[in-house]
Amino acid sequence: MKKLLGGPGTVCGLLLRIGQCASAAASIGVMVSAKEFSVHTAFCYLIASMGLQLLWSFGLACLDVYALRGKKDLQNPILVSLFVVGDWVTAMLSLAAACSSAGVVVLYEKDIKYCNTQSQYPCLRYEVAVALSFVTWIQIAVSSHVTFWILASV
Amino acid sequence: MKKLLGGPGTVCGLLLRIGQCASAAASIGVMVSAKEFSVHTAFCYLIASMGLQLLWSFGLACLDVYALRGKKDLQNPILVSLFVVGDWVTAMLSLAAACSSAGVVVLYEKDIKYCNTQSQYPCLRYEVAVALSFVTWIQIAVSSHVTFWILASV
Repeated sequence: MKKLLGGPGTVCGLLLRIGQCASAAASIGVMVSAKEFSVHTAFCYLIASMGLQLLWSFGLACLDVYALRGKKDLQNPILVSLFVVGDWVTAMLSLAAACSSAGVVVLYEKDIKYCNTQSQYPCLRYEVAVALSFVTWIQIAVSSHVTFWILASV
Repeated sequence: MKKLLGGPGTVCGLLLRIGQCASAAASIGVMVSAKEFSVHTAFCYLIASMGLQLLWSFGLACLDVYALRGKKDLQNPILVSLFVVGDWVTAMLSLAAACSSAGVVVLYEKDIKYCNTQSQYPCLRYEVAVALSFVTWIQIAVSSHVTFWILASV
């Protein structure tokens, strides 16, 4: 199988997974610290999907560490297929969550100007949490395409 | 190159493109007919991304018809690369638009119950337009993966 930068069992792949964990955890942390987040379905969905992403990326990070230390080759078709499906599902869920939350934040900020009238409303925290979820999505999109390319080039 | 069902220059591929055009056009039509859609950034973005999708899918449908009638083979690496990039970009934009609009519709329906209090508010039309945009996204996701698979298996 093609050895691609960022693929499973490589240092680059491990760094990508750690980056995904960090930004997903940060997104959850910021959103949970914002008042009244639980009133919004989109924000609750954001936390759920970032939580799923955190678990998935943490699991694969551990696998990468195991492979690197034991000099194991993770790039066999069955394992890579599993990675492809998992990466693709979490990437879609992360993008959907980030965009639905962004839709609500833009509605408050720009369309109904709710943030200006209600100055104590935690709009900034919502924005930071949504921005971090997009950062998470970009990283998982990279992983998802690298593993998909490896699989398709078998 | 692998001949895949739904690939460029096949009957199945043509039907998929026509389906994308139909659901994208329907989504635009329903959203435009809803009162006060223009107040919402997310809904304006939905119309823009469905418009782009309509143009892209219509263009490729014409190409498929040309290829089928002239028995031409569209599956050469350069053309397929173009299809992959175009399909991927429009698929991401469609999903982002559908999700951000869905975030706003769920906020109105469920979180702040705006639709119950303001009965004349066109919530149903918003919902139908968002549902149609998800239908469009599912079809373009299929096309995007088929062409990506063809390209990666060169």
